[in-house]
Amino acid sequence: MKRLLPLVALLFPLACQQADTTPESAVPIAVAGLAALPTDPPELVGNPITERKVELGKMLFFEPRLSRSWLISCNTCHNLALGGVDLLATSVGHGWQKGPRNSPTVLNAVFNIAQFWDGRAADLKEQAMGPVQAAVEMNSTPDRVVQTLQSIPEYVQLFEEAFPDEANPVTFENMARAIEAFEATLITPGSPFDRYLAGDEAALDEAQLQGLELFTGKGCTACHGGHNVGGAGYFPFGLVQRPGADLLPPGDKGRSAVTQVESDDYFFKAPSLRNVDLTPPYFHSGAVWDLGAAVRVMGTAQLGTDLTEAEATSIVAFLRSLTGSQPQIDYPILPRHTKDTPLPELGPMEEQH
Amino acid sequence: MKRLLPLVALLFPLACQQADTTPESAVPIAVAGLAALPTDPPELVGNPITERKVELGKMLFFEPRLSRSWLISCNTCHNLALGGVDLLATSVGHGWQKGPRNSPTVLNAVFNIAQFWDGRAADLKEQAMGPVQAAVEMNSTPDRVVQTLQSIPEYVQLFEEAFPDEANPVTFENMARAIEAFEATLITPGSPFDRYLAGDEAALDEAQLQGLELFTGKGCTACHGGHNVGGAGYFPFGLVQRPGADLLPPGDKGRSAVTQVESDDYFFKAPSLRNVDLTPPYFHSGAVWDLGAAVRVMGTAQLGTDLTEAEATSIVAFLRSLTGSQPQIDYPILPRHTKDTPLPELGPMEEQH
Repeated sequence: MKRLLPLVALLFPLACQQADTTPESAVPIAVAGLAALPTDPPELVGNPITERKVELGKMLFFEPRLSRSWLISCNTCHNLALGGVDLLATSVGHGWQKGPRNSPTVLNAVFNIAQFWDGRAADLKEQAMGPVQAAVEMNSTPDRVVQTLQSIPEYVQLFEEAFPDEANPVTFENMARAIEAFEATLITPGSPFDRYLAGDEAALDEAQLQGLELFTGKGCTACHGGHNVGGAGYFPFGLVQRPGADLLPPGDKGRSAVTQVESDDYFFKAPSLRNVDLTPPYFHSGAVWDLGAAVRVMGTAQLGTDLTEAEATSIVAFLRSLTGSQPQIDYPILPRHTKDTPLPELGPMEEQH
Repeated sequence: MKRLLPLVALLFPLACQQADTTPESAVPIAVAGLAALPTDPPELVGNPITERKVELGKMLFFEPRLSRSWLISCNTCHNLALGGVDLLATSVGHGWQKGPRNSPTVLNAVFNIAQFWDGRAADLKEQAMGPVQAAVEMNSTPDRVVQTLQSIPEYVQLFEEAFPDEANPVTFENMARAIEAFEATLITPGSPFDRYLAGDEAALDEAQLQGLELFTGKGCTACHGGHNVGGAGYFPFGLVQRPGADLLPPGDKGRSAVTQVESDDYFFKAPSLRNVDLTPPYFHSGAVWDLGAAVRVMGTAQLGTDLTEAEATSIVAFLRSLTGSQPQIDYPILPRHTKDTPLPELGPMEEQH
């Protein structure tokens, strides 16, 4: 990934400066079960990251004309101004419909084992194809998307440049590949915790160090470990004690709908806790706004431990140290549509008011 | 506004600064009734433009938490990726409700005589207060907005810095002042037509020159004149021949609702034609998608002239030369809310699906 360094530096100039506050000579600090966030994206299966693909992917990420209404883009529910989420319990899509689950952050999502709360998409490329077609989200179709992109000469050229070896580059799959390449760059290095791991002992204050000790000592790292502090596996929500229907709606059985294995009932991907302070409300149901309350739910439900308020407060202090530098984005200027572009359709609800 | 009169603009061709392709020695070209776009915003009444105010205003422009749902920002309907509009016939707001009129572009709007299609807001500051409160748009209230901003320490500090002489700077009016200051910077210099006016004869091609001649010769500049090519006054839609109800819905009488003068029935502000190619669909009803068709409607309705298709095509070619450089925006990172921030409310429709 060495050749990507200039691109990453370009995308995260501020982050690089912040990360530089750790002296070169600092001795890395080891914390059992946790690791530093990589500053470069991993290699994407079948989708080499190039500057042109990332730039196209950024435009598509902000492109509301991928939705039937011309109102909803990836950024609507994964707002890069707001930690890569929409700050709603569950997302709102076409026709103001509420989706079934809380929108996970796109930040560092490239490091997750799979995408969606139930892991039904193997990677970000596969994930990107979902909401575009979901009736409660962007409510479009692959055909409509390709027709839209084909109708705009600037996009045709950008696809040709991003996929130079392909005879017919404007495809639904390549839309997803470009979005994946862009999203893979949405990494948030330079968090206090990463500076601490790099050897800057002063990067965490007393409360955060206490929280870190509780976080590892109580066993949180069993599910929320590694460099992404989670995102690496599926676990039953309610391992020790099942939470109420407000947090765990009985109709949403999670992972088992993907695996068709009954023992996976109510398994969900343990989310990455990177930037978790920025991404309430919490859980797949989005039922809990307060991070401390969410931590206490985890204690009871997953660890069989009633954390005290003081313990939860310490853990929250540590979790806040997982907030890294947010990606700096030049807001794209999107090309004009043409007479061949399918026009917006607001759906059956449009005449109700 | 005196300093913006065509003659003055011709004597001081500010556009030259942006027109890097125009040689310094170029002699400005005079076009009757039209003038170069200023590259700097005018002074705002009671609202000096400062860097801090613009930066705060940019954040607020992209801030969905000014809306009750946390889903809708100024940029939703005035998308800076799309020429400052939403490309919908009429805008969609809270609860997927359709608004009554087409969303005008925010680009160069600071040069308009007043804001909204009926001019009911004297300036951008007054305009900004409207959609935030409108039930069919952002559906918030001044109290809720102030409570929201007050609850977020970073915003309190940014307001203090933007309005340093005020004891209590976090007000609804200052929200509007900051947004006005940002929007005043959304100017699009460097259009081919401005380069032409600056003396670069090659900036317009043959078709565009022909279109320009038709545009001035047929009398379009009577309503669409000056440096903003419109936006300077109110005129009856259907001066010569009233268009059908699809273009001019009889229930929307325009300016007369503001002035309470019956003779102002069906008067609307003639919009600026700057960037008009980017901002379909056209008219306050948003009923016409094709710019050539819109030009022919204007010929019949306003000038009593049935323009030929060839004439309309030429005029469209000229109108495309009014597209300038789009503002380059660093997408803002918005501060986290707190426990005192009023949480999102999606409204009565949220449980329908």
